[in-house]
Amino acid sequence: MSMSEAPISAEAAVIVGGTIAIDHVKTPEAEAADLLGGSAAYAALAASFFSRPVSLVGIIGHDFPQVHLDMLEDRGVSLDGVERSESESFTWSGEYHANMNERTTHRVGLNVLENWQVKVPASSAAAQIVVLANMSPDNQIEMLTQCGLGPANGGTPDSRFVVADTMDLWIEIANERLHEVLPHLDLFVLNEGEARELAGTSNLVRAGRILLDKGPRHVVVKLGEFGAMLFSDGGEIFRASAWPLEAVADPTGAGDTFVGAMAGYLAAQGPPPYSAAQLRQAVVQGSILASFTCEAFSTRRLEALTRADLEQRLQHFRQATHW
Amino acid sequence: MSMSEAPISAEAAVIVGGTIAIDHVKTPEAEAADLLGGSAAYAALAASFFSRPVSLVGIIGHDFPQVHLDMLEDRGVSLDGVERSESESFTWSGEYHANMNERTTHRVGLNVLENWQVKVPASSAAAQIVVLANMSPDNQIEMLTQCGLGPANGGTPDSRFVVADTMDLWIEIANERLHEVLPHLDLFVLNEGEARELAGTSNLVRAGRILLDKGPRHVVVKLGEFGAMLFSDGGEIFRASAWPLEAVADPTGAGDTFVGAMAGYLAAQGPPPYSAAQLRQAVVQGSILASFTCEAFSTRRLEALTRADLEQRLQHFRQATHW
Repeated sequence: MSMSEAPISAEAAVIVGGTIAIDHVKTPEAEAADLLGGSAAYAALAASFFSRPVSLVGIIGHDFPQVHLDMLEDRGVSLDGVERSESESFTWSGEYHANMNERTTHRVGLNVLENWQVKVPASSAAAQIVVLANMSPDNQIEMLTQCGLGPANGGTPDSRFVVADTMDLWIEIANERLHEVLPHLDLFVLNEGEARELAGTSNLVRAGRILLDKGPRHVVVKLGEFGAMLFSDGGEIFRASAWPLEAVADPTGAGDTFVGAMAGYLAAQGPPPYSAAQLRQAVVQGSILASFTCEAFSTRRLEALTRADLEQRLQHFRQATHW
Repeated sequence: MSMSEAPISAEAAVIVGGTIAIDHVKTPEAEAADLLGGSAAYAALAASFFSRPVSLVGIIGHDFPQVHLDMLEDRGVSLDGVERSESESFTWSGEYHANMNERTTHRVGLNVLENWQVKVPASSAAAQIVVLANMSPDNQIEMLTQCGLGPANGGTPDSRFVVADTMDLWIEIANERLHEVLPHLDLFVLNEGEARELAGTSNLVRAGRILLDKGPRHVVVKLGEFGAMLFSDGGEIFRASAWPLEAVADPTGAGDTFVGAMAGYLAAQGPPPYSAAQLRQAVVQGSILASFTCEAFSTRRLEALTRADLEQRLQHFRQATHW
């Protein structure tokens, strides 16, 4: 996909804050080092398929590969909000097992992330869609504040749309703070295990309703190879399956891709609020884009992806789920 | 649903062979004893929602509750193929845990099943659809033979349609014999874990293709709360999600319900072969009927179910998956 295919505006409609990482990934079949990783990197790249520029907010170290930054800029991801530190970059090393749903983390190097506080560039603080990709709830609240939203600013007006992701770590060590984020979200996205844990129930439908009660207008529970469920505050449920992938090369970042693609797709529909139909489309676009992420290490498949590839899989997905 | 709602013919279009059990089930919330159970009992009852009579083949002991037999007959299930033994009935006692996907078997009383050999009544041996519900591959082959099909009769002609289920036990202790069944099947149904085990791969799409290579024309992998996947020998895949259940009372028999409903639905469409569209509809009908099975102990919810209930949920399911 060339840059000219996504609608381009002067200012970013989407701002994405979160981690930017150097990943080292091993799978049963291969291994690769110095890969682009991090929740915000995946989400920003995914959003850029639908709406450009995307403002990326995060921090990198002196050792961060320039090739990754060039790739992102080339895809319409603005790096004005990426802080450069003299410390070392955040890194993650992990290994996937024969069942690609299970992985072992070998090493996490927090480095620049220690004591990091998010800094939103003034030029994109008013972005219509704010994506709080996976990062500490402290930083999520800080980003909301700097975007003129959240508890310090009396909530989110209907003209803005806030999307957030999280992870098991924050549910465990920053549960209260995470609960302060939730009432300010239009869309809260988390995976199956996290949903069960945060809601305190094994039933996913009940979990979805319990999570809605915590404040978000919409909740998406990601089910990995089994798709996703969208719960909305009117009680409506959307159940999407996933593209049946015959080979998974590296699932890292699939969930972040999903979140970013939803945000980018919605931004391309114009200003909020968004209809149920638009949110459902966003879930499907997110799910399909995430399926591509799984097909190669890191963002490599997304980098090579064309709009035609995406459209074709969407069409095949419709055929594969039609009855 | 009254009997008059399903099309009635003089001879059974569907014959179902397998186990008929007395179940004792405990869940985190309740407990019930002397329940109707067994693969063939669930499957025959499910099939009877779509096509009547259904010929049930199995064995029961002297202690089998008459109330269950009366219920089945009342639903158009013919008991001519149910052998009565002076021994005790096959029983299963199990307990579901907080996550209703996990269960512990407390006791299996094989009783009448020891040395049981299936006996197909002459009046329904020519049934258009033959369902080999979960039972030993030996008995599955014997049933095929008595129905004029299978290895002893040169396979399955296009005018008949054979559906089979299995379980992890047979994959482990009767693997070769199970492989003798597979080439004679039009539709092989098994659950996710069984598919991974029998195919020897963790990827479900690859598993589906590997299972097709073993001979069946179509393979359905049941995914429990995540729906099902249908693989057909032309390479086509159908991905169906499941009805989002907010409360699961007892999932026992949901998979057997699924198999029986598929068979019954197809029988109601007329003689085989069946189109891809008909098979997809059968998967959805099976999935929705199975969702009702989970809502109460044993067959209790199915016993109270009306055609209108089923139609309404199908409509809601279409709405919940539309995009």
